[in-house]
Amino acid sequence: MIKLFYASDTCSLASHIALEDAGADYSTARISFANDEQRKLVTDKGVLTETPAILAFIAQSFPQARLAPLDDPFRFAEVQAFNSYLCSTLHVAHAHRMRGNRWADDPAAIAAMQRKVPESVASCYQLIEEKMLGGPWVMGETYTICDPYLFTMAQWLEQDGVDPSRFPKVIDHRRRMSERPAVRKAIAEELA
Amino acid sequence: MIKLFYASDTCSLASHIALEDAGADYSTARISFANDEQRKLVTDKGVLTETPAILAFIAQSFPQARLAPLDDPFRFAEVQAFNSYLCSTLHVAHAHRMRGNRWADDPAAIAAMQRKVPESVASCYQLIEEKMLGGPWVMGETYTICDPYLFTMAQWLEQDGVDPSRFPKVIDHRRRMSERPAVRKAIAEELA
Repeated sequence: MIKLFYASDTCSLASHIALEDAGADYSTARISFANDEQRKLVTDKGVLTETPAILAFIAQSFPQARLAPLDDPFRFAEVQAFNSYLCSTLHVAHAHRMRGNRWADDPAAIAAMQRKVPESVASCYQLIEEKMLGGPWVMGETYTICDPYLFTMAQWLEQDGVDPSRFPKVIDHRRRMSERPAVRKAIAEELA
Repeated sequence: MIKLFYASDTCSLASHIALEDAGADYSTARISFANDEQRKLVTDKGVLTETPAILAFIAQSFPQARLAPLDDPFRFAEVQAFNSYLCSTLHVAHAHRMRGNRWADDPAAIAAMQRKVPESVASCYQLIEEKMLGGPWVMGETYTICDPYLFTMAQWLEQDGVDPSRFPKVIDHRRRMSERPAVRKAIAEELA
């Protein structure tokens, strides 16, 4: 039995959607990110953290859901490279709006970081729009664990001061994702 | 045939060591990180980026080298979670020393980021020392793709202004790694 500890409006939504996509038997518990409670996945074998690792774990644990190309190390690595980019570049750019105190103490420096977020986040989406997002899904014709992760990040475009009309493929992806029953169910549960 | 495009003194050393560990038939080409040339792994099937994805690809492509617990999704996810932490938290903390212009334009803000690097990098190593590094290898008794990645990051401790004596397990790991023939070979090639 799997239990996801999630915080609202954070990247844990990606894992929540993937558990729905997988048809997993799971439960959830809401935690407070503001209180530094850790988002995590508790399994029979132990605790997992880090969204890219959790997403690959879900894909490997529920192979019948075909959420990643498990039999092809190269294609699997392409999935992982995209998720690693979201985790280490896009999410980090976004985090400079709310969590600048991780990287500087001076309030003026934290404000300077916040000012650059629209530009640094947009430059990530430029790369995603032009080079990474195959369409209709991230990896092309096949839906994978990249899709709930991109969808989760793309929730924050407007908050980050990025004009979504610059990225029509990303916005089309976000719209199609939002219509999937698994996505609606995960979001409804987090908003309840 | 695999070709690694690496830049000296960057995280591509982790992939370089893992290729040696795997006994892979590979070649290398040096690029300039300063010129924004991208570190990548070129394979017969295409190009891969992102260190965690490349490391997992090497482990899966050379299963006889036993560089990751490939038959156990939970243990594999633990390996991936550690590598994701290095990529998205430790490496990002470190990058604020040299690459602050990614996240702010104001020179005073960039200087403020640089000042906090010793503290933010040390707080990552505190977690690694106390919670993550099982010993003697990252995952405990078994050497995995986590080890060359941690070793590569730990090269930068002193440059980042962190007192290595605070982290004896990390330093012991670094010393033992530096004595491995695969590590010596990869470093010698990058220094040549």
